[in-house]
Amino acid sequence: MEVGAHPGFPDLIGFGRRAMEIRKDELENYVLYQVGALYGMAKTEGIELQHVKPHGALYNMAWVRTDYAEAVVAVIASFNPELILMAPYGSKMYEVANKWGIKVAFEYFADRNYRSDGKLVPRSLPQALVLDVEEATERALRAVSEGKVKSVEGVDIEVAVDTIYIHGDSPHAIELAMSIRRRFAEAGISIKPLKVFVR
Amino acid sequence: MEVGAHPGFPDLIGFGRRAMEIRKDELENYVLYQVGALYGMAKTEGIELQHVKPHGALYNMAWVRTDYAEAVVAVIASFNPELILMAPYGSKMYEVANKWGIKVAFEYFADRNYRSDGKLVPRSLPQALVLDVEEATERALRAVSEGKVKSVEGVDIEVAVDTIYIHGDSPHAIELAMSIRRRFAEAGISIKPLKVFVR
Amino acid sequence: MEVGAHPGFPDLIGFGRRAMEIRKDELENYVLYQVGALYGMAKTEGIELQHVKPHGALYNMAWVRTDYAEAVVAVIASFNPELILMAPYGSKMYEVANKWGIKVAFEYFADRNYRSDGKLVPRSLPQALVLDVEEATERALRAVSEGKVKSVEGVDIEVAVDTIYIHGDSPHAIELAMSIRRRFAEAGISIKPLKVFVR
Amino acid sequence: MEVGAHPGFPDLIGFGRRAMEIRKDELENYVLYQVGALYGMAKTEGIELQHVKPHGALYNMAWVRTDYAEAVVAVIASFNPELILMAPYGSKMYEVANKWGIKVAFEYFADRNYRSDGKLVPRSLPQALVLDVEEATERALRAVSEGKVKSVEGVDIEVAVDTIYIHGDSPHAIELAMSIRRRFAEAGISIKPLKVFVR
Repeated sequence: MEVGAHPGFPDLIGFGRRAMEIRKDELENYVLYQVGALYGMAKTEGIELQHVKPHGALYNMAWVRTDYAEAVVAVIASFNPELILMAPYGSKMYEVANKWGIKVAFEYFADRNYRSDGKLVPRSLPQALVLDVEEATERALRAVSEGKVKSVEGVDIEVAVDTIYIHGDSPHAIELAMSIRRRFAEAGISIKPLKVFVR
Repeated sequence: MEVGAHPGFPDLIGFGRRAMEIRKDELENYVLYQVGALYGMAKTEGIELQHVKPHGALYNMAWVRTDYAEAVVAVIASFNPELILMAPYGSKMYEVANKWGIKVAFEYFADRNYRSDGKLVPRSLPQALVLDVEEATERALRAVSEGKVKSVEGVDIEVAVDTIYIHGDSPHAIELAMSIRRRFAEAGISIKPLKVFVR
Repeated sequence: MEVGAHPGFPDLIGFGRRAMEIRKDELENYVLYQVGALYGMAKTEGIELQHVKPHGALYNMAWVRTDYAEAVVAVIASFNPELILMAPYGSKMYEVANKWGIKVAFEYFADRNYRSDGKLVPRSLPQALVLDVEEATERALRAVSEGKVKSVEGVDIEVAVDTIYIHGDSPHAIELAMSIRRRFAEAGISIKPLKVFVR
Repeated sequence: MEVGAHPGFPDLIGFGRRAMEIRKDELENYVLYQVGALYGMAKTEGIELQHVKPHGALYNMAWVRTDYAEAVVAVIASFNPELILMAPYGSKMYEVANKWGIKVAFEYFADRNYRSDGKLVPRSLPQALVLDVEEATERALRAVSEGKVKSVEGVDIEVAVDTIYIHGDSPHAIELAMSIRRRFAEAGISIKPLKVFVR
């Protein structure tokens, strides 16, 4: 098991899932505060942090906005440049991390639908989630083996996958994780530690 | 300049100056969260934390309560046992730190009056503060050179002093700091880095 | 159905269940803020507030401390003196409300054990809860009909009961409510609106 | 003196001055919570609320977004339809209030510069504030007497003014208030209670 920080916006009552307009230097402080706090928790348990994955609305905004992406990557660069940034393929986060020499693992969302522009279908829309375990499993297999996933508009889009995300509060979360693991084994795809895959 | 963490209760609107009844394991988490967060901030500036000094009501309660003292010392012991705990002479914090092998620096409060039992006069009482700079300076000199300070009841009590605290929001804070420094120089007492004094 | 305010300490992460030392005028502000906010919510639904019942640690502290009891009662007196205060028999809250001419309904805790001094067994102790539905039902019946309840020390103590409280997060909460209602009906005790019972 | 509510986003550390993306029903709850709480405070002092003026980023967003404007106006409509909404000329807030039969007072910002589209120059830009008291006074006089103000681009734009706002944290706030009052008196413009002006 590896541990990573999951920093988000200072919006507890919205669970960090609402867009906020925050100045870059302040956002950097919020991210650093959370990464440092988790570092402390982990250290007392004898654990090193492996990665940083922004949470909720911060993740979605840093996907497309350079200033938010820079705030996140700046924390990694200044706190511990060995931390892996989990970020989507084609994101500003990847662009910035790549430019600044920070390692990235591409993340694929097994329980979410994608739009043709490569972004996730927002949670406010009915098609946000892929609820069928079988379907989600086959999509994940194709994403990994072919680098392709079908958008809600029916178009094949390009993805790259180093790590697969399943929301803990999705229905069938555990079932989906087991199903993917089983299907990948059948297909001869082995699951390895994240550090093997970083770019 | 040295940097230390100043963790307090999760009571922002009370500025951490109000007593709270918190379970020891939760209190330990709150302290660790804050120490870790500051560690992160400091690390990105190339600074190592030197000490931990609990804030406000936490400081006063950990002065006299073993469970709160243990929560604070446990964080130092598990996060970084080289951190120095700033604590008052005669406090439970000192007792616990001493038993657990954690370094302590005794703190003297230059702008506060003491009771005969060695505790500070609470802020809710009119005599809490020593407002006269001259008087506070002479008291500090005597505390350091003789290990004695006169309580509000007029009794000499024993203190031990490794570091002198002046509240940033006290009137004449800067004036008092300069006055003490000048008076100590006249008296041949030199000011040295904290690590020289730890017990 | 009647609606009442359930104001507590400003301690969200502790769910208002931890003691806090708060100045009386500040506590009064916190209580008033919450009562006013709920008044607004209720008004937009065409509902009048009926009562105020302090929450968690505030309830327990206002049970025994005059200053906290006064803060709660002062809000009722100044905001709307027709509001009924829910308070335990023998509490400071009752004493203060009585003196200030504020109506009180005595509250009995069906799912909690009592000490011989008439207070609840604290949640930190194993005997805090009465978990057996049958036992809790018979205790409630006796409390209402005889004005007596057996303490954990085995002594009969005096209680007075106008309203019966069951914690929503207790196991068997709904079962207990149904059981008490059934048993009371069998015993010929009818349940009536709170305003009938106030003192 | 009249009292009004100044509800804002749940973003204390950003002082409500940062944009947030909030669902309309949740925003309505936040606004109602604050209006109700202030109603309670005012009632205990024997004061009736006169108006509602959204704060900071909420004000700026409800200026141009129908959903946010509706959330604010809905609270007035359901809590107390006699409350006056303070809103800028040409805003969505005015549009919605007008449609729903809620009274509006047009607000002019004496210490802020306007853009040619009628909005305020954002605080993040250097020209946000009108710092010169003399200039701000003459602009206010012209806004009231001619219904015109010069934008930062040098174009005359239309405004309508029922009430003049001066930020309490602006430099020269008191001086500006006195200057405007004096200049208006010289020009024969009298200052009257807000309720005279509502639309």
